[in-house]
Amino acid sequence: MKRVKLVVAYDGTNYCGWQGQPNAVTVEGVLNETLRNFLKEDITVIGASRTDSGVHAMGNVAVFDTESRMPAEKMSYALNQRLPEDIRIQCSEEVPLDFHPRYQECRKTYRYRVVTNEFPNPIKRLHTHFVYRELDLDKIRRAAEYLVGTHDFKSFCSVNTQVKETVRTIYYIDIKQVDDELVIEVNGNGFLYNMVRIIAGTLLQVGMGAIKPEEIPGILEAKDRTKAGPTAPAKGLMLVAINYIASIK
Amino acid sequence: MKRVKLVVAYDGTNYCGWQGQPNAVTVEGVLNETLRNFLKEDITVIGASRTDSGVHAMGNVAVFDTESRMPAEKMSYALNQRLPEDIRIQCSEEVPLDFHPRYQECRKTYRYRVVTNEFPNPIKRLHTHFVYRELDLDKIRRAAEYLVGTHDFKSFCSVNTQVKETVRTIYYIDIKQVDDELVIEVNGNGFLYNMVRIIAGTLLQVGMGAIKPEEIPGILEAKDRTKAGPTAPAKGLMLVAINYIASIK
Repeated sequence: MKRVKLVVAYDGTNYCGWQGQPNAVTVEGVLNETLRNFLKEDITVIGASRTDSGVHAMGNVAVFDTESRMPAEKMSYALNQRLPEDIRIQCSEEVPLDFHPRYQECRKTYRYRVVTNEFPNPIKRLHTHFVYRELDLDKIRRAAEYLVGTHDFKSFCSVNTQVKETVRTIYYIDIKQVDDELVIEVNGNGFLYNMVRIIAGTLLQVGMGAIKPEEIPGILEAKDRTKAGPTAPAKGLMLVAINYIASIK
Repeated sequence: MKRVKLVVAYDGTNYCGWQGQPNAVTVEGVLNETLRNFLKEDITVIGASRTDSGVHAMGNVAVFDTESRMPAEKMSYALNQRLPEDIRIQCSEEVPLDFHPRYQECRKTYRYRVVTNEFPNPIKRLHTHFVYRELDLDKIRRAAEYLVGTHDFKSFCSVNTQVKETVRTIYYIDIKQVDDELVIEVNGNGFLYNMVRIIAGTLLQVGMGAIKPEEIPGILEAKDRTKAGPTAPAKGLMLVAINYIASIK
């Protein structure tokens, strides 16, 4: 038996998120079905990040165990022949049998894209949030600086979660304007439920002047979800990459 | 009566191109229907560029005549409230009654996007062509230089056309690599049927080594469609902008 790690890219538009649910089409569900048909084994993938409905990914990670003698690195090609075109395996490789995509230390990078213009861009409508108003990038950058570091992010966590430990580390938040797009890139060692979308929603409020950058430390300290900004829409979010640290020996 | 000019952006994925046809959903058809419902007049728009099925636009142009007393520049807002979200008016303004979007001198800019990677990018699948092989940018740039200027582009024109005059001027072709994307931007005073897609298809052949850059002058001279490369797929093409020259007094 061997364990195979997949780097999975998908357009989340037509999926009810990653995680398998009865009567809903999910990325995990499609992967399981495709692997079962292809390998004739009862495969169940374990995903690193259970992205929400409508969230996109370039680098989510999944593992599965198989008796197949096909080399792991060839599986990406075989799977891409069988998957719908809104899911594409970017890489497949063998990993140690004790490699677990959720329990291994890692850095995750998320990107949140916002079109800031007079009118929405129809080409980007499924992959960006749209904000009519001009945003103050300088204020957004100053606010973001307060979030970088190790903090209790309870104020930036959806109340619909059972997680008890809400301290996380953000290594960087990069803010840039590219043509008609504001791009917020967040890198950290783990994220609470809806954390990136709440950070994006809060930074957008800062950009519009509704929250001052200097209010961010107080919002963190409050440990109260109602003090932060709204949860920005799912479609603007993309899981860019998950980098495991010294995990694959 | 006044004439109103619209700058129209659309995702061409779900349309059978620009031009109205019976029993097919077209961008022109949706615009006519929306304008008729909104202005209660028998409006028929005239489009600048009759883009093919699946081709996208950020800056196609259409005009229509109306008795409405609503200021032309407000119409973009009103129309965007009523249009499907894959069509968005970027700008509306009054133009002289003799302004015709097809007969006025202009410069058009098209962009052709190609993802060059080991696997397709599912997020970009509807707006890019995918090429598995690595492309030689230097060769593509050298080939493109031969196309810039005033030439008879008959070899780069679909045979399904009745146009007799096949001389056109290309002002520039800009080739750049942005992340996983090769972007070919072409600017000229007019384009023959499928011309940009045949240019893109030919330049991709050059990038793969199937055509040498030095063969381009001979392909132009042959005035024979079969000498150029294939017509690249519609979904990679976007009409970026149409700039009218001294036409709006």
